[in-house]
Amino acid sequence: MPDTPIASLLGPLRAIVGERGLLTDPFDTAPYAEDWRRLYQGRTAAVIRPADTAELAAVVRLCAKTGVALVPQGGNTSMVGGATPAEDGSELVLSLARLDRIRDIDPVDLTLTIEAGATLKAAQNAAVEAGCLLPLSISSEGTAQIGGILSTNAGGNNTVRFGNARELVLGLEVVLADGQVWNGLRRLRKDNTGYCLRQLFIGAEGTLGVITAAVMKLVPRPLATEVALCAVASPEAALDLFGRFRRHDPAALVAFEYMSGTGVDFVLKHIPGTILPLASPAAHYALIELATPRPDAALRAVLEAVLEAAFASGFVQDAAIAESEAQRQAIWRLREEHSEAQKREGASVKNDVAVPVAKVPELIRRATAVCESLIPGSRVVPFGHLGDGNIHFNVEQPEHVDAAAFLARDHEIMDAVNEVVRDLGGSFSAEHGVGRLKPYMMPAWRGGAELELMRRIKAALDPQGIMNPGKVLPPAGGG
Amino acid sequence: MPDTPIASLLGPLRAIVGERGLLTDPFDTAPYAEDWRRLYQGRTAAVIRPADTAELAAVVRLCAKTGVALVPQGGNTSMVGGATPAEDGSELVLSLARLDRIRDIDPVDLTLTIEAGATLKAAQNAAVEAGCLLPLSISSEGTAQIGGILSTNAGGNNTVRFGNARELVLGLEVVLADGQVWNGLRRLRKDNTGYCLRQLFIGAEGTLGVITAAVMKLVPRPLATEVALCAVASPEAALDLFGRFRRHDPAALVAFEYMSGTGVDFVLKHIPGTILPLASPAAHYALIELATPRPDAALRAVLEAVLEAAFASGFVQDAAIAESEAQRQAIWRLREEHSEAQKREGASVKNDVAVPVAKVPELIRRATAVCESLIPGSRVVPFGHLGDGNIHFNVEQPEHVDAAAFLARDHEIMDAVNEVVRDLGGSFSAEHGVGRLKPYMMPAWRGGAELELMRRIKAALDPQGIMNPGKVLPPAGGG
Repeated sequence: MPDTPIASLLGPLRAIVGERGLLTDPFDTAPYAEDWRRLYQGRTAAVIRPADTAELAAVVRLCAKTGVALVPQGGNTSMVGGATPAEDGSELVLSLARLDRIRDIDPVDLTLTIEAGATLKAAQNAAVEAGCLLPLSISSEGTAQIGGILSTNAGGNNTVRFGNARELVLGLEVVLADGQVWNGLRRLRKDNTGYCLRQLFIGAEGTLGVITAAVMKLVPRPLATEVALCAVASPEAALDLFGRFRRHDPAALVAFEYMSGTGVDFVLKHIPGTILPLASPAAHYALIELATPRPDAALRAVLEAVLEAAFASGFVQDAAIAESEAQRQAIWRLREEHSEAQKREGASVKNDVAVPVAKVPELIRRATAVCESLIPGSRVVPFGHLGDGNIHFNVEQPEHVDAAAFLARDHEIMDAVNEVVRDLGGSFSAEHGVGRLKPYMMPAWRGGAELELMRRIKAALDPQGIMNPGKVLPPAGGG
Repeated sequence: MPDTPIASLLGPLRAIVGERGLLTDPFDTAPYAEDWRRLYQGRTAAVIRPADTAELAAVVRLCAKTGVALVPQGGNTSMVGGATPAEDGSELVLSLARLDRIRDIDPVDLTLTIEAGATLKAAQNAAVEAGCLLPLSISSEGTAQIGGILSTNAGGNNTVRFGNARELVLGLEVVLADGQVWNGLRRLRKDNTGYCLRQLFIGAEGTLGVITAAVMKLVPRPLATEVALCAVASPEAALDLFGRFRRHDPAALVAFEYMSGTGVDFVLKHIPGTILPLASPAAHYALIELATPRPDAALRAVLEAVLEAAFASGFVQDAAIAESEAQRQAIWRLREEHSEAQKREGASVKNDVAVPVAKVPELIRRATAVCESLIPGSRVVPFGHLGDGNIHFNVEQPEHVDAAAFLARDHEIMDAVNEVVRDLGGSFSAEHGVGRLKPYMMPAWRGGAELELMRRIKAALDPQGIMNPGKVLPPAGGG
């Protein structure tokens, strides 16, 4: 509990951020107190919207002095309640939305210095205007903000080529839990001068400090792109095909997605305007995107050569290559509408898991068998980033059963899938983070020395525990 | 000072690691107590050489219990005394050399799980045998060990394409300062389950714990390579040429090195068998290597097209493309013999600095002017990884002066160069780390909130201060 009643803080907070920077009307604050998936309904006395890093630092200093907890919030698109305040009203929401400036962009340096409240889309646009590419793309990019993207180490479709968000950061500016500002906005590709602090704040989900700006790496803009959809014989065949493209030219392979026949069927059934550009439906699909800034790279010939070899070996059964931007988008739509189609088909239980790339076929086979045996008639919908070992292993309810009864068994299903994942040396959260939803899993998966290290770091950097409490780490004594 | 006389520890240590695992004869321990550059002559009562992680952990537990400090040591190739024990004999050397097993290699997964005491060369060889490439190469690779490579976040010639050592690590096994073993040897490309601990230990120079094994990323083996040496008009022309190659196909550009005419002249003068494959000497050179696993990539055509365009615009004055492996090696030798040639020419002062890539020409011009004005007749030899913004800005003594008198002014020269580097937002140690040589620079360069964060992390993870004392962080009170 805070040392000071929150109400008495509102005056001093207003003095720092001004009228415009403080929302206290429950009508205004409500959207900030609920998570995107509507799993949590928090309550907060105020949403603080500082205009710049200096104001934000003053806010944190005040809260540190009075022991009041802060929940940093970007676009509020967390899948795990990572930016939602507690129900008891003891926490204030700290919105980054007004820190949305592009501070610098340098196409020779291939760096973008940008504030945390800018959306990923705005960052991408700035890169394009400078003739470059920010090689990070996720479905919420129009809303998700850079600060949240980095605090959750976002992944997405192009990770197989360019890495996770943490691989794209050269420097950070962070307001620490005591209100000090660490200016680590360096634009250096090599810098071995002490501990790598930026990687500690990236992925910490706002529990160690507030990221206020970052230096992001850019890459040259691609000038050639090819997209193909393949019917493949099995998950093993999809992995084989991935290996062929990677061996041939890993730098050109910017996306390699797996989809099950069930998932694609749901999309074709529920999403108007979608079509399958192949002769007949298949049990397994691979979606491949190649791209390069090299204009004369003959990507089409590469694509055809690799597919022909795979076809000859029996792994690929059919393939369609997009002939236009419209066709490219139509193929990608089969992948991107997966969530929406599953929703329309009924209730589903979601697992965002990762295993070593070589273990993806085993994951799909074993987790499918486990789920079908646990809930006869359930329809498994594995799909996602095969090239990263990251599969969204979703389980759709059986037809003609009560959705609520199915959902009542959600933890049973998640546990069953996760048991396979653990056995394969995997992760229970590949992309989405831990947030409020999954700290309870940390002792079993990351317990012992690892969780103790995390707790020590938390205590060292946020001794009062005022930065996004209840996220990432389970309550003390929890392992 | 340790709580227990070190002598009384030798028995219990021998009980853990056996006779073979403990060196106490000064004749045996001497090579472990001196750094590679012979800047420091330390003293140690024993060199402990555990056979595996369990033995190593037991050693650390014993030392933690008795408060005795340990200096982890790999190949002992530090340029900054990072693995040398103190002169007072209060520290024990912990050699990783016997932990040299390859635990696993998976060419489908493209991962190598390897112990810390294996040399980089052994790791590279294991990758090649599996049909892959470990894309990290430094000049000491035959001696330097994986644990040291990761503890110092090594860079090298291929960083422009594949990143620093920290970009190549998926998982770590670390013995913590209290002797607990953290098994974080995960082979996952995506895993957002709490703080990114591995990046904290990478680059920490053994001050937070001892890396005992790692999961490294591999890449497909290149099947085509081209190497060229170009005479360029200026540092600006070298940067322009780098930009041309990067825009064309950044994935094919695996090295882009800058050399000054002075440095190449020293090599040609002092190193037998070296030749300049161009019509006449130039004031500035660029060394370019392209490579790709794609057999049909027509790299030669790419190289010629980019060079022709640069030639037409006046930036490139002459170029030689290697026609054989022997010619490739001959061109690379001009770069690799730089240190040896400078040594033969006389005394020199070395600066391993980095600036934003776009600022490299300004760094070279300004630092050259400053040095020539400070020490008339001195010969600046800037060379190195232009594509990473990392220049080895070495300063050679004037001809016909006393070497000692020149070297007496080494800190004056370093300070003068570093003033320019700081003004350009750079780093005083791009690749080599901080070690024992440069902690005194930390308060001025990384002081305030940043150094305070580092100290808090050190105190949280190594509260007794027994892990590699005196390295990286300056003594308390130092900023």
